[in-house]
Amino acid sequence: MPPILCIAGPGEGAPLDAIAAAERVAELAARAGWAVVCGGRDAGVMAAVARGARRGGGLAIGLLPGNTTEGAAPELSLALATGLGEARNAVLAQSCNKMVACGMNPGTASEVALALKAGKPVVLIRPEPAAAEFFQGLAPELVRIAESADQAVALLTTSSSP
Amino acid sequence: MPPILCIAGPGEGAPLDAIAAAERVAELAARAGWAVVCGGRDAGVMAAVARGARRGGGLAIGLLPGNTTEGAAPELSLALATGLGEARNAVLAQSCNKMVACGMNPGTASEVALALKAGKPVVLIRPEPAAAEFFQGLAPELVRIAESADQAVALLTTSSSP
Amino acid sequence: MPPILCIAGPGEGAPLDAIAAAERVAELAARAGWAVVCGGRDAGVMAAVARGARRGGGLAIGLLPGNTTEGAAPELSLALATGLGEARNAVLAQSCNKMVACGMNPGTASEVALALKAGKPVVLIRPEPAAAEFFQGLAPELVRIAESADQAVALLTTSSSP
Amino acid sequence: MPPILCIAGPGEGAPLDAIAAAERVAELAARAGWAVVCGGRDAGVMAAVARGARRGGGLAIGLLPGNTTEGAAPELSLALATGLGEARNAVLAQSCNKMVACGMNPGTASEVALALKAGKPVVLIRPEPAAAEFFQGLAPELVRIAESADQAVALLTTSSSP
Repeated sequence: MPPILCIAGPGEGAPLDAIAAAERVAELAARAGWAVVCGGRDAGVMAAVARGARRGGGLAIGLLPGNTTEGAAPELSLALATGLGEARNAVLAQSCNKMVACGMNPGTASEVALALKAGKPVVLIRPEPAAAEFFQGLAPELVRIAESADQAVALLTTSSSP
Repeated sequence: MPPILCIAGPGEGAPLDAIAAAERVAELAARAGWAVVCGGRDAGVMAAVARGARRGGGLAIGLLPGNTTEGAAPELSLALATGLGEARNAVLAQSCNKMVACGMNPGTASEVALALKAGKPVVLIRPEPAAAEFFQGLAPELVRIAESADQAVALLTTSSSP
Repeated sequence: MPPILCIAGPGEGAPLDAIAAAERVAELAARAGWAVVCGGRDAGVMAAVARGARRGGGLAIGLLPGNTTEGAAPELSLALATGLGEARNAVLAQSCNKMVACGMNPGTASEVALALKAGKPVVLIRPEPAAAEFFQGLAPELVRIAESADQAVALLTTSSSP
Repeated sequence: MPPILCIAGPGEGAPLDAIAAAERVAELAARAGWAVVCGGRDAGVMAAVARGARRGGGLAIGLLPGNTTEGAAPELSLALATGLGEARNAVLAQSCNKMVACGMNPGTASEVALALKAGKPVVLIRPEPAAAEFFQGLAPELVRIAESADQAVALLTTSSSP
């Protein structure tokens, strides 16, 4: 079975560079043999993850908060309606081996924090200084900063990666 | 995206005919274009679902109750450690379009009941009379009985199916 | 801390005798020192549980499926909006020491099945024959049948109770 | 029914001033008519919340991550074993009206982030500068900083408070 990468980030209102980074991370990770999981909605970083993983030829599973798959990103391999609301963020954090965050909002912050709580390495791509300082302070041994999607994927796959 | 079939049934202690039925349902459903989800453990009906879906060339996603994928059925396409305990049964019921149950124990009963609560059609394969009567009484319009795996898949795919 | 009794049963459409039984069980259990938990909505058995526990002077905690406490039974001691949808049934089953079911529908069946999966004793009050046979077949050592609310509470509190 | 305050903070390893602040917030909030919820374990901030609420004469409900109430803070009014693992943090965030955080670690960060995602006002007591800046940047209209437990409770109860 492939290892699982969770790519977290905002839906609506995601910055364009976060969207571009997420799509690139998903594509590169898929090519490198990762399955990717994300929040699954057809918006922002989530939609970009689905597009990128499809282009990279990998599995992309979306875990949606609601009771149906309405509004799921159409490029996903599979959309699972969890019905759990935001508690699905805990499932994303628990089910992945590693996480990359592109952009930041309260939902993304919860995913990063839950991943750290579960002991999972997290790469933040071009975070604001406060986000970088905050999460590195929480779990210095688990958090890495990347300046680009390519660097993020390199950090994920080097043997000494977080 | 493919429609999703949840195949429910006991792990340890599953009767041999339930295991055989689950494997056959998974294979036929995979050939017919369904993705399958199950509880994901390497035991009984769950393991059979993974084997059957793989033989049928389809996606099989296991939703595990614990915090790791240890003990996951190796033939799964992907094992997601939900960390939710038995609340993952609600995710299985919510995320599927339809459900087939092979064998019965308390966990399986919870999956069937949650699927009915969510309004999902359920096919029971060769249930005990009390199980058939109980679930048909709960939701007569959603529950069908099949005498074989092949009949179960036929019921899933006919346009007038539950 | 008090032991916890989950009283399960239908909301809308609950039979009058199930509502009356739930209210009586909650009152008697509260007088006997139990805290009660239930699904929390202001309907049917859930509302009756809140009323009965209040009359008995005990704690009644409602675990609601939605994101707000709108529609919570007003007599509850506390309403917790779980946001988990029907996965909150797993929390009800896991958090109680014992369960009593008054009436039956798919949601109630899921709570009973999840309680049995978690190894919790369950008393069914005046179940239909199919329900009695089904659940006793699933877990004979955990399921008891009561003909009245008073008998149900007696079964809960005798040392040799299930 | 009383409004619900979630008091979040580390268990093992919580700083002494965070423990003292949590106990004081819980006591003052209980006196002011709030019910409090917390993670429920007999450690650090969680244990302090239980003690403080009891001294203040209010309800304190602990939502534990595991399948049993083993290790619950003994001063709780009620301990609910959710069986959800860290997904119970989402339930804490969803079920409260407001949140106060005393101290910070990955679990606490997830609770704060989930509360902000759910639109709940959060008061951080004496946060590190990076935490203050990070969370205020995420949701400036919802996050307030307090220098003391008393100030935190004052912020919770003023009509114009977040």
